[in-house]
Amino acid sequence: MGKKKAKTGISPTREENYAEWYQQVVRAADMAETSPVRGCMVIKPWGYAIWEHMQRILDGMFKATGHKNAYFPLFIPKSFLEKEASHVEGFAKECAIVTHHRLVAGPEGGLIADPQAELEEPLVVRPTSETIIGASFASWVNSYRDLPLLINQWANVVRWELRTRLFLRTAEFLWQEGHTAHATKDEAMEETMRMLDVYADFVENHMAIPVIKGRKTELERFPGALDTFCIEAMMQDRKALQAGTSHFLGQNFAKASGIKSQDQNETEQFAWTTSWGVSTRLVGALIMTHSDDDGLVVPPRIAPAHVAILPIYRDEEGRAAVMAHVDQIAGKLRDKRYGDRPLEVEVDTRDLRGGEKNWSWIKRGVPIRVEVGPRDVESGGAMVVRRDQGIRDKQSLTVDEIVGKVPDMLDEIQQSLFDRAKAFREEHTQTIDDWDEFVDYFTPKNKNQPEAHGGFALAHWCGENEVEEQIKEMKVTIRSIPLDGDDEPGQCIKTGKPSPRRVLFAKAY
Amino acid sequence: MGKKKAKTGISPTREENYAEWYQQVVRAADMAETSPVRGCMVIKPWGYAIWEHMQRILDGMFKATGHKNAYFPLFIPKSFLEKEASHVEGFAKECAIVTHHRLVAGPEGGLIADPQAELEEPLVVRPTSETIIGASFASWVNSYRDLPLLINQWANVVRWELRTRLFLRTAEFLWQEGHTAHATKDEAMEETMRMLDVYADFVENHMAIPVIKGRKTELERFPGALDTFCIEAMMQDRKALQAGTSHFLGQNFAKASGIKSQDQNETEQFAWTTSWGVSTRLVGALIMTHSDDDGLVVPPRIAPAHVAILPIYRDEEGRAAVMAHVDQIAGKLRDKRYGDRPLEVEVDTRDLRGGEKNWSWIKRGVPIRVEVGPRDVESGGAMVVRRDQGIRDKQSLTVDEIVGKVPDMLDEIQQSLFDRAKAFREEHTQTIDDWDEFVDYFTPKNKNQPEAHGGFALAHWCGENEVEEQIKEMKVTIRSIPLDGDDEPGQCIKTGKPSPRRVLFAKAY
Repeated sequence: MGKKKAKTGISPTREENYAEWYQQVVRAADMAETSPVRGCMVIKPWGYAIWEHMQRILDGMFKATGHKNAYFPLFIPKSFLEKEASHVEGFAKECAIVTHHRLVAGPEGGLIADPQAELEEPLVVRPTSETIIGASFASWVNSYRDLPLLINQWANVVRWELRTRLFLRTAEFLWQEGHTAHATKDEAMEETMRMLDVYADFVENHMAIPVIKGRKTELERFPGALDTFCIEAMMQDRKALQAGTSHFLGQNFAKASGIKSQDQNETEQFAWTTSWGVSTRLVGALIMTHSDDDGLVVPPRIAPAHVAILPIYRDEEGRAAVMAHVDQIAGKLRDKRYGDRPLEVEVDTRDLRGGEKNWSWIKRGVPIRVEVGPRDVESGGAMVVRRDQGIRDKQSLTVDEIVGKVPDMLDEIQQSLFDRAKAFREEHTQTIDDWDEFVDYFTPKNKNQPEAHGGFALAHWCGENEVEEQIKEMKVTIRSIPLDGDDEPGQCIKTGKPSPRRVLFAKAY
Repeated sequence: MGKKKAKTGISPTREENYAEWYQQVVRAADMAETSPVRGCMVIKPWGYAIWEHMQRILDGMFKATGHKNAYFPLFIPKSFLEKEASHVEGFAKECAIVTHHRLVAGPEGGLIADPQAELEEPLVVRPTSETIIGASFASWVNSYRDLPLLINQWANVVRWELRTRLFLRTAEFLWQEGHTAHATKDEAMEETMRMLDVYADFVENHMAIPVIKGRKTELERFPGALDTFCIEAMMQDRKALQAGTSHFLGQNFAKASGIKSQDQNETEQFAWTTSWGVSTRLVGALIMTHSDDDGLVVPPRIAPAHVAILPIYRDEEGRAAVMAHVDQIAGKLRDKRYGDRPLEVEVDTRDLRGGEKNWSWIKRGVPIRVEVGPRDVESGGAMVVRRDQGIRDKQSLTVDEIVGKVPDMLDEIQQSLFDRAKAFREEHTQTIDDWDEFVDYFTPKNKNQPEAHGGFALAHWCGENEVEEQIKEMKVTIRSIPLDGDDEPGQCIKTGKPSPRRVLFAKAY
């Protein structure tokens, strides 16, 4: 018989059933839920507030690099999608199609799409906006003086998915899509890399998720791109999650949409374009990187609240004294700043038992909890607990200590989450040169986790698409050709043919 | 022969052709354009930046009144829309309907909606979200402790419109929709009025547009509401524009969606709900309230840039001296704040003639222009021009004067725009008691402005729907029963029957 298990906030634990643990973390943190509309999710206030902080920070980074926001139509005429052959090939199989513009009473009661109101040309709900934004760019760009054109859009997009999972894969999701046009190939490539760096900076320094920057193989490229770059992160089941992509589109879309300008010699040139995006999928990455068996853990920089204060009392008289003390602490904390905003403090005055209240904030992942009971009123302090430490690791601090220490404590939490995630990734990343070892590495050992396996493998690949396809049959894909990896040549793990450098293999979301 | 007309930035002028003037203002300010998708617009960076400032301020006001943001599906199952009879009646005639989820190669080449991928139940692209949000609320509300539930959503919505006009009426538009549920009728009514007040506060104090708060008549109510309140503004063609609405939905939607809770006696009660929204239509109101024959005028509180600095020089040498002076002014201004944000300064370094540069900022409506030429470098100052004053009303100020005065000057501009709009409305609002006079008041006198007329009329109405319908044949509608008007009884302007108080009649957008 094993020893008695400690009680956890989330059941099952990661070890017991990772996929179910994920759903339960989302549910316990009140972040999102499935909706009655197939494939679409409802993002609840706590989940949406995290997305808002991500948006705010990213938006500032985009503006600081010269981009301006704009908004383009939700609908794309079918003919636009058809303009770029590999693009439509990539998206036609999974798009929502609008065919009518009116409902009327049907012959059997109820409403039907009015046959008299069928659209001449069906409209596709945007799965991505290269083609519709390209049409605008074509009219905005005339001279080289109009370039570079640096635009971003915050929007919802739809890709019809049959097997969905909250945040990670839903038919409708929220994202931003950057679209830029440049006079030269070099400038467009520079932009592609700049935005990859912005993404890596944001995800590492604000979301505390370490990432590997790399280039996608031809098979994994965005439909229509000449080159796709990505950042890949490791989740706690050791699978990879693509956390952001930046595409060098060459002149493909410029030719499809007619984006051209006169250069200084009055010669007409097609523009060079890029596109890049991150989505609410990143919220899924956040959950799977930091959360533990007690629930969500939110890095302070993007936390909707930095501190939750939990008043504990027995009766009305006790309540008054405790609340006065709580208000004093909350007021002093709210005068402080953390990162680019005032420190955000939630005071939980709900009529709940202390344990229940405490667990609800643990499960929501608030970085710091401050418990205030009658004894704390007497001593002039409070009990402080960090979400990245044990539930029982409470520190008794005076009010002045709390107010003085909280911003540093938040920095420490931010750093400790990043360090922990990075150590985890390093522990589960291996250089592999032998095919049998490679196969064994990706073979699950735990029957409760049918998809669990070794983690990331850095191995040689000869560059052939067919070999990549063969390996894909094991559900192992080339996540990227890392930009920062060493470039020592070797032999392909599968064929033994020459390989210029190792690539990153993993199972992936 | 008349005297020679002064040159204007926009042609035609308001007097010459108001509708065309509006389109030209939007175009000259680079705010938005029509798109290849019927009825949908492209919001360009300058227009979108105004919307972003409106969003930021409104969002702060919603949060300050206890609301939290969330996000709900873009698609609404047809059956949901059918749940509330008058609601579906109101929206069925103009909605985009998704019927398929895949494109395939058609028999004649090109792609068609895949007949194999027809949805079992068509989905409607949300025209508004009462029914889909109601489904979530039904599961979120169980006990009286879960109430009030105060939610807001920022989203795109679609109402199929055949006759569209940028910002004012488009098939897709951006908006926010607040949805709340309460334990009692009184609380729901209080919320309805609170949000009406928030809207009036925002539109008057940030957009500088005076509004009249009122209650809609039964015929003008939101489909499914028990009571609709609105704010109405007067445009420069004297027509009314509904600038925001707040709906008291009673228990209609709660019953349709099953939003109910146990009260303190464990008796089940249906909730009382509200909804309220403003949209990108407000940008249209902004344009039509403040702009003049030289183009857009943006109130400082929501202006994407407060100050545009225009360097003027002849050669490279002159350039260096002017730019050093410009950078000094820009740097000092950017250290100041205006309202809730740092002062935003654009330095226009484009390679354009001085006049062209100047006109481009006049047409964009930036509140203050600062011209810096070689003589200003010598004198240590610059020429300052306010957008609400004449193009030639330049003030020569020292750098210190500029830096010291700009924030106050912005306040003065904000106030002068409001005062001017209010005076215009008062000038064109009349109390009318005689039917012939009423008809004459609403009869256009200017052949270039087929819809121009007297303006707002405060007149008595007996309260009968048929009378309202008859008057509507003249394209004159009851905009609202003003909340703040006097309540002296009188006789209906049309029937002579008793009327409890005057109502607001106008032609409207």
